[in-house]
Amino acid sequence: MNPIKGEQLLAQLNWRYATKKFDPARKISPEDWAVMEEALILSPSSYGLQPWTFVVITDQKMRERLFPSTWNQRQILDCSHFVIFTARTKINNEDIDRHVARTAEVRGGTAEALKRFREAMSGDLVTGVRAAQAHDWAARQAFIALGNFMTSAALLGIDTCPMEGFKPEEYDDILNLAAKRLASVVCCAAGYRSAEDKSAGQKKVRFSRTDMIHIV
Amino acid sequence: MNPIKGEQLLAQLNWRYATKKFDPARKISPEDWAVMEEALILSPSSYGLQPWTFVVITDQKMRERLFPSTWNQRQILDCSHFVIFTARTKINNEDIDRHVARTAEVRGGTAEALKRFREAMSGDLVTGVRAAQAHDWAARQAFIALGNFMTSAALLGIDTCPMEGFKPEEYDDILNLAAKRLASVVCCAAGYRSAEDKSAGQKKVRFSRTDMIHIV
Repeated sequence: MNPIKGEQLLAQLNWRYATKKFDPARKISPEDWAVMEEALILSPSSYGLQPWTFVVITDQKMRERLFPSTWNQRQILDCSHFVIFTARTKINNEDIDRHVARTAEVRGGTAEALKRFREAMSGDLVTGVRAAQAHDWAARQAFIALGNFMTSAALLGIDTCPMEGFKPEEYDDILNLAAKRLASVVCCAAGYRSAEDKSAGQKKVRFSRTDMIHIV
Repeated sequence: MNPIKGEQLLAQLNWRYATKKFDPARKISPEDWAVMEEALILSPSSYGLQPWTFVVITDQKMRERLFPSTWNQRQILDCSHFVIFTARTKINNEDIDRHVARTAEVRGGTAEALKRFREAMSGDLVTGVRAAQAHDWAARQAFIALGNFMTSAALLGIDTCPMEGFKPEEYDDILNLAAKRLASVVCCAAGYRSAEDKSAGQKKVRFSRTDMIHIV
């Protein structure tokens, strides 16, 4: 373990902001991007089920095609890597079995323990009361990954802009996501701020500690 | 800006895991907790609207009261700080006005620009098509904060356990959240792993990069 100091964490969290204008000439290095992909993969999720796929749009033609479905926001064109966080439209036993098999592969485990694990997940998300809300559940998990992605990027000095301003149905059509039982839930542009981004200099707006944190 | 190296980020993300057994004798120092509170407050949210309150349960009697509503999971009793992520049950113009006023206080801004900002948010979340789903929207934002909280903690060497296994309606009743237009959406225990936690030694289970990341 090699933790960082609190001041450094807060300095980076204060440095980050929702970047409105990216420098189109500056790309994230392959080494740094590999770290960001690994950070995405390491995102925590309930049951460790990872009910998501991260779709990274690097092809400029595809970005131009998605641009009108992104309310013409230039971040999708100018950023280095544009990530679409997609989540399962429903959870089925294939998802559960794949996770159980992966768990057995990585950790081993008795058939009995894996069976109980399988039944807990299946009984909750496939046949249980939460089955009908499984996409919403999966979407919330994807927002954990988004939070992890933005904080990880800030720690590395990479700028991001989380984006809910897009048309999910159009994205899903263009990327043929329904066939993969996936739907787009939120996006995040990553790269480096342009020297011309006026948002960069603005003070961060947050409510006071007493408004945001209640100690009981 | 003082970024960290990719190896250090990944080392800490690999070090973290969903802690099943906390050391009840070891508490997060007030200095470290102040950093964690500040990290929570700095969590990004759509429009910067911060549609949440972080309820931190430190009182042991209250923890015991919440314990049965937490499926008797001991993390709530043994951890150092137990955070309940609550989100607005609906968004109203009071929330919007408070955010606009705070923005004006921190950044200034012309009346016209603030009016447009107000109308964009209100037209989306108070009177727009998303108004009926405003709680779900707010809940997703809270999961950004959860992701940021877990990653920030891991960077500082603090253990966490995200917890969906609790009864939100019972929490809301016990904490009288409805009166504040809040509902509990997810929890996270924070503290330090017990030397006896067998989960600590287990390998991390993640799907492969090719399964999780699609490059287009």
